[in-house]
Amino acid sequence: MMKPLEGCLVLDLTRVLAGPYCTMILGDLGARVIKIEVPGTGDDSRGYGPFQNGESAYFMSINRNKQSMTLNLKTEEGRKIFEKLVKQADVLVENFRPGTMEKLGYPFEVLKEINRKLVYTTVSGFGHTGPFSQKPAYDIIVQALGGMMSITGEEGGTPMKAGASIGDITAGLFAAIGTLGALSSVSKGSDGQHVDISMLDSQVAILENAISRYFVGGEVPSPIGNRHPSITPFCSFPTSNGFIIVAIGNDSMWKKFCKLLNFEKVSYDSRFLTNADRTNNWKELQRIFESEFLQKTTEDWLIILEEAGIPSGPIQTINQVVNHPQVINRNMIIEVEHPEAGVVKMAGNPIKFSDTAGQDVTHSPLLGQHTEVILKELGYIDDEILAYRKKQII
Amino acid sequence: MMKPLEGCLVLDLTRVLAGPYCTMILGDLGARVIKIEVPGTGDDSRGYGPFQNGESAYFMSINRNKQSMTLNLKTEEGRKIFEKLVKQADVLVENFRPGTMEKLGYPFEVLKEINRKLVYTTVSGFGHTGPFSQKPAYDIIVQALGGMMSITGEEGGTPMKAGASIGDITAGLFAAIGTLGALSSVSKGSDGQHVDISMLDSQVAILENAISRYFVGGEVPSPIGNRHPSITPFCSFPTSNGFIIVAIGNDSMWKKFCKLLNFEKVSYDSRFLTNADRTNNWKELQRIFESEFLQKTTEDWLIILEEAGIPSGPIQTINQVVNHPQVINRNMIIEVEHPEAGVVKMAGNPIKFSDTAGQDVTHSPLLGQHTEVILKELGYIDDEILAYRKKQII
Repeated sequence: MMKPLEGCLVLDLTRVLAGPYCTMILGDLGARVIKIEVPGTGDDSRGYGPFQNGESAYFMSINRNKQSMTLNLKTEEGRKIFEKLVKQADVLVENFRPGTMEKLGYPFEVLKEINRKLVYTTVSGFGHTGPFSQKPAYDIIVQALGGMMSITGEEGGTPMKAGASIGDITAGLFAAIGTLGALSSVSKGSDGQHVDISMLDSQVAILENAISRYFVGGEVPSPIGNRHPSITPFCSFPTSNGFIIVAIGNDSMWKKFCKLLNFEKVSYDSRFLTNADRTNNWKELQRIFESEFLQKTTEDWLIILEEAGIPSGPIQTINQVVNHPQVINRNMIIEVEHPEAGVVKMAGNPIKFSDTAGQDVTHSPLLGQHTEVILKELGYIDDEILAYRKKQII
Repeated sequence: MMKPLEGCLVLDLTRVLAGPYCTMILGDLGARVIKIEVPGTGDDSRGYGPFQNGESAYFMSINRNKQSMTLNLKTEEGRKIFEKLVKQADVLVENFRPGTMEKLGYPFEVLKEINRKLVYTTVSGFGHTGPFSQKPAYDIIVQALGGMMSITGEEGGTPMKAGASIGDITAGLFAAIGTLGALSSVSKGSDGQHVDISMLDSQVAILENAISRYFVGGEVPSPIGNRHPSITPFCSFPTSNGFIIVAIGNDSMWKKFCKLLNFEKVSYDSRFLTNADRTNNWKELQRIFESEFLQKTTEDWLIILEEAGIPSGPIQTINQVVNHPQVINRNMIIEVEHPEAGVVKMAGNPIKFSDTAGQDVTHSPLLGQHTEVILKELGYIDDEILAYRKKQII
């Protein structure tokens, strides 16, 4: 069975993370992604460590299933080539600061004149409209502005950012969804349109019940560590060699839990009878069980809790994650052969299709690896290509 | 212009968060989403606080743009109605524990016999395959198992979960992408297929460079607070009334920063000359600037840093986020009139289309609000509907 986006051509002007994450998904879905890079240097993230045989592991892990073409958009010939590609493309994705495409002479109105079916997807810190649209943004700045940090971290402690760049990545996910939506409109006869994704908007969209809690109760949510705001115990405990999560959702599970840990009389303690009691007195509850959990390893606790049917799980470090049997079984760690770096390991595609399941993955492209192939497809001949190369147009 | 998914019918058997988040996105894109709920009780999250005039703010914020129909799938008549709906539907989404649909007599093979074009999207803790597929999962358990917690939190402190349920929400996002991908295949003539999304897979997919850092360097990433692993200062500082993020990306910015704060001689200190020096000696660097940032408010610092062109931003609490001029301007806080709750405020749709921009939002449905309308569309008459209601089939 064909992949979902087979036959779809994506021009990819993105750099670093949010944009490339979006086009990686489109490539994973079967689109042909042509990454257009600045001759000589390419995507900044080609220079980000760590390196494997001189190749950026960072770059390689989010640019699989893409082709690379170098092209200088500030030259006349470069622009001609670009416009030929725009004519054929279904999608153009970029994550420049808003205004950059205008400066290059390619505002959406111009792109639309070249190809009225083109879906134009942009990912930026604050979106293409509004008073902040021109400001620079980094992942940590949108995690901070968007409120996620204010609800993450130790109770009473410093607000924390999530350890992965979810400011970039969620914007990349919404950009992929918006692109697919706009493509669906095009397939039903509409023109292409501009899909304008903002990292800050995306952060607000994932705040979930923090927003309703504030609007309904007036309560400003703050970090509460790993505990649940209204269910207890539903949190982490340190063990002798790590941490474990215990998730006790109801009173009968609570009794079972106390019995299992030989704290039967605690379950009848008036401070802990109902879930509301336990939540109000969680600090005392935590103190009682904390020393107990320190007596055994995470692995021992997992066996004990699992046998009793109590939802639990370890806090895994990355080395444990990549070796976890379920992660392996689901093909979530893949190996890709790269011509320079050798075998590269990276996270797999979490979208598992029953029919178009083929997890065949092409390594991330070398800078300009497909320039010639693409130019020949456009009808250029060897002599022209050579001349372009000399003039640093490609 | 029509919305991207106008004309698309989604049967929604989802509950709580990950599944409903996916179908909310499909509804935002214009699909008709029919939420099928258990008569009498409905989606568990209708019982989750906080409440606004007795209606769950949690439920209302992720079930906008949906219709609700009550239906007892364990009765013969209920099943007949369900199968009529399956025949007409384009998509069915559920987030039951794997095996539940089989127990109901509706494994995908059976659904496919009813409607071979049906896209069947499932969201579960661990996916429908593999040794963990039958295990229960909560957001905190997949954040723990998936490694996100192990890289979030204070340096040397307890691993932290992200404050919002990104375990659920990112799975919902990947489910929306997979559904749109499979719909694209159907529109090109393929049959429907099973899109199998796992919360754990989704966590692994967003770990980003933590995985490459581990595989390339052998380093097991651990929490490092709010600082950047390789750029310094790129972190938060406490101020007199909150926190501020400062993001100094290069040496010239560093010099500018030191001058601005009257620490010019620090910029020539041999411990801090290059970015690598600053990262190696970040604790000393932090100590020097920390007391300075405590002298002024976040607002004062923002003006000073912005004037100097230094990327910065406040750590905003939720009350600040929902009143931020850019958030307001981008329509990211919307008001929806609900028949019982009154005006409900929630996060808006972060996917901004230039043409199909209509942000018209329908309030989340009352339990069974659309049962009659839908049954009548299917050809049932008043007497039948009354009988079904008496027999608690609807």
